[in-house]
Amino acid sequence: MTTQKNFKGYAITDANRWSDFKVIDFPSKNWEETDVEIAITHCGVCGSDVHTLTSGWGQFETPLVVGHEVAGKAVRVGSQVKSGIKVGDRVGVGAQIGSCYSCKYCKNDNENYCPKSISTYNNQYPDGVRTMGGYSTGMIANEQYVFPIPEALSSAEACSMMCGGLTVYSPLRRNGAGPGKKVGIVGIGGLGHYAILFAKGLGAEVFAFTHSHSKDDDIKKMGADHVVFTGEEGFEKKHAMTLDLIISTRDVSENFPVADYLSMLDVHGKFITVGLPDEKLPGNSASAFAANGCFFGGSKLGCKKEAIEMLDLAAKKGIKPWIEELPMKDVKKAVENVKDNKVRYRYVLEQDIA
Amino acid sequence: MTTQKNFKGYAITDANRWSDFKVIDFPSKNWEETDVEIAITHCGVCGSDVHTLTSGWGQFETPLVVGHEVAGKAVRVGSQVKSGIKVGDRVGVGAQIGSCYSCKYCKNDNENYCPKSISTYNNQYPDGVRTMGGYSTGMIANEQYVFPIPEALSSAEACSMMCGGLTVYSPLRRNGAGPGKKVGIVGIGGLGHYAILFAKGLGAEVFAFTHSHSKDDDIKKMGADHVVFTGEEGFEKKHAMTLDLIISTRDVSENFPVADYLSMLDVHGKFITVGLPDEKLPGNSASAFAANGCFFGGSKLGCKKEAIEMLDLAAKKGIKPWIEELPMKDVKKAVENVKDNKVRYRYVLEQDIA
Repeated sequence: MTTQKNFKGYAITDANRWSDFKVIDFPSKNWEETDVEIAITHCGVCGSDVHTLTSGWGQFETPLVVGHEVAGKAVRVGSQVKSGIKVGDRVGVGAQIGSCYSCKYCKNDNENYCPKSISTYNNQYPDGVRTMGGYSTGMIANEQYVFPIPEALSSAEACSMMCGGLTVYSPLRRNGAGPGKKVGIVGIGGLGHYAILFAKGLGAEVFAFTHSHSKDDDIKKMGADHVVFTGEEGFEKKHAMTLDLIISTRDVSENFPVADYLSMLDVHGKFITVGLPDEKLPGNSASAFAANGCFFGGSKLGCKKEAIEMLDLAAKKGIKPWIEELPMKDVKKAVENVKDNKVRYRYVLEQDIA
Repeated sequence: MTTQKNFKGYAITDANRWSDFKVIDFPSKNWEETDVEIAITHCGVCGSDVHTLTSGWGQFETPLVVGHEVAGKAVRVGSQVKSGIKVGDRVGVGAQIGSCYSCKYCKNDNENYCPKSISTYNNQYPDGVRTMGGYSTGMIANEQYVFPIPEALSSAEACSMMCGGLTVYSPLRRNGAGPGKKVGIVGIGGLGHYAILFAKGLGAEVFAFTHSHSKDDDIKKMGADHVVFTGEEGFEKKHAMTLDLIISTRDVSENFPVADYLSMLDVHGKFITVGLPDEKLPGNSASAFAANGCFFGGSKLGCKKEAIEMLDLAAKKGIKPWIEELPMKDVKKAVENVKDNKVRYRYVLEQDIA
């Protein structure tokens, strides 16, 4: 017997028409007593949605509802839910909606690296049910992946923290961003603006790298201590071996001066890309890593513990994302503007399906 | 007034004839009272010597004496030497022979990363004196770069630890190789054999990766717990997300399956190349780093503190390198065999200049 529920969502029905959305009905996962059902009120628009819909990360099956920066209200709470979520609570869901719940990663706050991780959309549960995202009326999720939203944050403010915020918060936190540390941020878009906000919130000295002057004022208002213009010849030499950590949100490989960024790291400093370009990254000379014993690394989302800590930090420090709100029916405009880098700095769609 | 001294060494005098050595006279650095003069008895043959002489790392000025795995006797000790070295002591010098002695790296046991580091050969002192290596009768070096050789190690055994040993010991030590850790070693040549010996000496579980079965017996005798044959299709899948650390000594970029190695790392595990191929490393997809939040990094030599610790570990645990001794006049054979991967596992040249 199926225990699925029907929701409605803005879907892509033809993979060749990546931004033409139609409202469809789709079935949820099968209900389990560890689940929470959420009536979605808001969903952020993430670069991942665009990478997926434009087939940059591979082919996808249609129809597909994307969106993994969800905020809404809990409308049903399973009898075995232990985290204290109650019907009526405001909650969010990010880019991960399931895992094995039993491996060492699921047990040691690394569930975001569980090899059986399930993505919030364009993936499937072990029973074959496809996952569908948050450009929709509702979602059912295991409580592990349902994060309570603090009073001090509106749902519109909180939703894009669920993926965009957490994706940069986790590597900042795990790699020591804090007082006395110099942190570089590359790519000042949706993720980059969060990286500035949270690196500052954690107490680090922030260096924002930008290839145009068009965002200089914004970057300063976000709180960056230094704006470094990468169009200047030899910009990296001025900062040689000074940064403890660089978080890169850049998602285009072409002409990516990775070696220049590596040269700005202090001994054993880390360059972490959270951007996932469609194309391979440029290869580097091994000597670029030997000079300062630096590291190039990646990071994947964040764990629930970090999500709660991030939301708490935002609430306590009054960290507000720079968002533009649109009704969900304007989703075509939203994804097209994200693709064209016209968003400043995150779109939030307000659910409007009748 | 010059305070240089003349030594004799086997030199390359024509950069186009990379393995034709001639004995020449050459001047030392100018004497300072913080220096030690060494009468060289042994010098190891390092892959770096071959990269340099074949111009793989760039052009070089002739004549050039290479060699940076030096062992010998202290024959003169400056009045300001504080480390306790006495005339007659057996001492070694590795690939670094100078630095600024005042920056934060020189002060915090990262002198190997000092931006003003001076290489033991093919480099120059601030006053313009060129550095010449250990295929020679003698060397003058600041005491910082002169390491005492423990009683339990012969000079032939100790010399190649000064570069080959230290180059792998430092990243093993700095990245937690020890009891309970799984450490992979890629490339079982001179450096790789040291990596197995020291990873075992530090108490780690060692996985040696090899693309042929010809060294299987040797690898087991060196103490590796597991030999993984990389010629087998899908070898990396059997070890997915299991290793804490991989040290790669491979110095050829072509067909280097870096992504396969990254996939074998546990969450936030590190792949560190100490091999420095002439060509750029292959580029990777950012998603190869996201899956397990892994790191690709480099490392450069090691600091004096680590050198002393490594020599002490070797002395205490009876760690002996696998060396083949040759008179220094056979240097041509030695470098050619290193180039052709015919050495098992390190040549040591015994100084024979009359």
